[in-house]
Amino acid sequence: MYEGPVQDLIDELGRLPGVGPKSAQRIAFHLLAAEPADIGRLQDALQKVREGVQFCQICGNVSEEQTCRICKDSRRDATVVCVVEEPKDVVAVEKTREFKGRYHVLGGALDPLSGIGPDQLRIRELLARMGADDIKEIILATDPNTEGEATATYLVRLLRDFPGLTVTRLASGLPMGGDLEFADELTLGRALSGRRTV
Amino acid sequence: MYEGPVQDLIDELGRLPGVGPKSAQRIAFHLLAAEPADIGRLQDALQKVREGVQFCQICGNVSEEQTCRICKDSRRDATVVCVVEEPKDVVAVEKTREFKGRYHVLGGALDPLSGIGPDQLRIRELLARMGADDIKEIILATDPNTEGEATATYLVRLLRDFPGLTVTRLASGLPMGGDLEFADELTLGRALSGRRTV
Repeated sequence: MYEGPVQDLIDELGRLPGVGPKSAQRIAFHLLAAEPADIGRLQDALQKVREGVQFCQICGNVSEEQTCRICKDSRRDATVVCVVEEPKDVVAVEKTREFKGRYHVLGGALDPLSGIGPDQLRIRELLARMGADDIKEIILATDPNTEGEATATYLVRLLRDFPGLTVTRLASGLPMGGDLEFADELTLGRALSGRRTV
Repeated sequence: MYEGPVQDLIDELGRLPGVGPKSAQRIAFHLLAAEPADIGRLQDALQKVREGVQFCQICGNVSEEQTCRICKDSRRDATVVCVVEEPKDVVAVEKTREFKGRYHVLGGALDPLSGIGPDQLRIRELLARMGADDIKEIILATDPNTEGEATATYLVRLLRDFPGLTVTRLASGLPMGGDLEFADELTLGRALSGRRTV
């Protein structure tokens, strides 16, 4: 509809999730009127992400170095590991300020229809951690939806054989069928403090 | 919250209009999983817009060359000029397929409280076109809100002195207090065909 570069930018912005044609147009004209330095910062951020983001070799979370800040922090209890689906779930749990242990990011949840089985998740890495570290409790904090529940059930069966290990699941309080990342801090905090053995 | 480049990208995306923290996070993780070529196209589009977009020297619309496609199109009636606030309003009127004349983009509407007076708009350029071209009708298609109405009233007074010129305003049918760009094609088309002399 527009000529040249403006339409190209609107098209590219419109491909992003949750950005419709009107939003894309609005953002494009905002950038058209923005300072070159403002656009530059967005370009730099894109370039860095394009060049590849590092993931923590221990927990699988987004990281600036080989090992993330949480895994490096000796004040965090290494004997309690909270297993989540995605890096954004780590941020959600951190916001509650209720958790002082470490994390393990699976990289998704079991979803056979989309071809995501145990081998597509970081489950082997979790079992390796079980062998290497002195983990006393695993908190299963996958999403309270079908895939997340299936993943939790699968992990409970796998972890049953480890002697002296307690496996817990986030307490009810989270609305079922929802997404962990959209829970408010209070609800998520209560679910965390009220976790039960499974 | 996240480490390094991912948080930088989320921050930059969050500065864009209509992109909240959750959307910014969603877009960032989408780009994290995207093909480098997909990010590359977005980067290229940003770079071109950053280097500067050309505006048509006649009508002020976004343009690929010195003169835009509409102003260059000899099949378009140069004696009828539709005056709009922004380039996106040109797109909105074009979508109706009811208008075969040319455009004049003001670059905004009169808004003294924000420091936008007649000198901040392309009104001098409009008067220059009046002198140079054989314009028979000016359609005032500014937004049907306070600023747009004030701009239309101001232009009516300015254009009153041109002999043989008809000045029209988009017909009622547009909901008052709204934004021209959000009108549906049918309403905008009817408003255009039912325009009245002022």
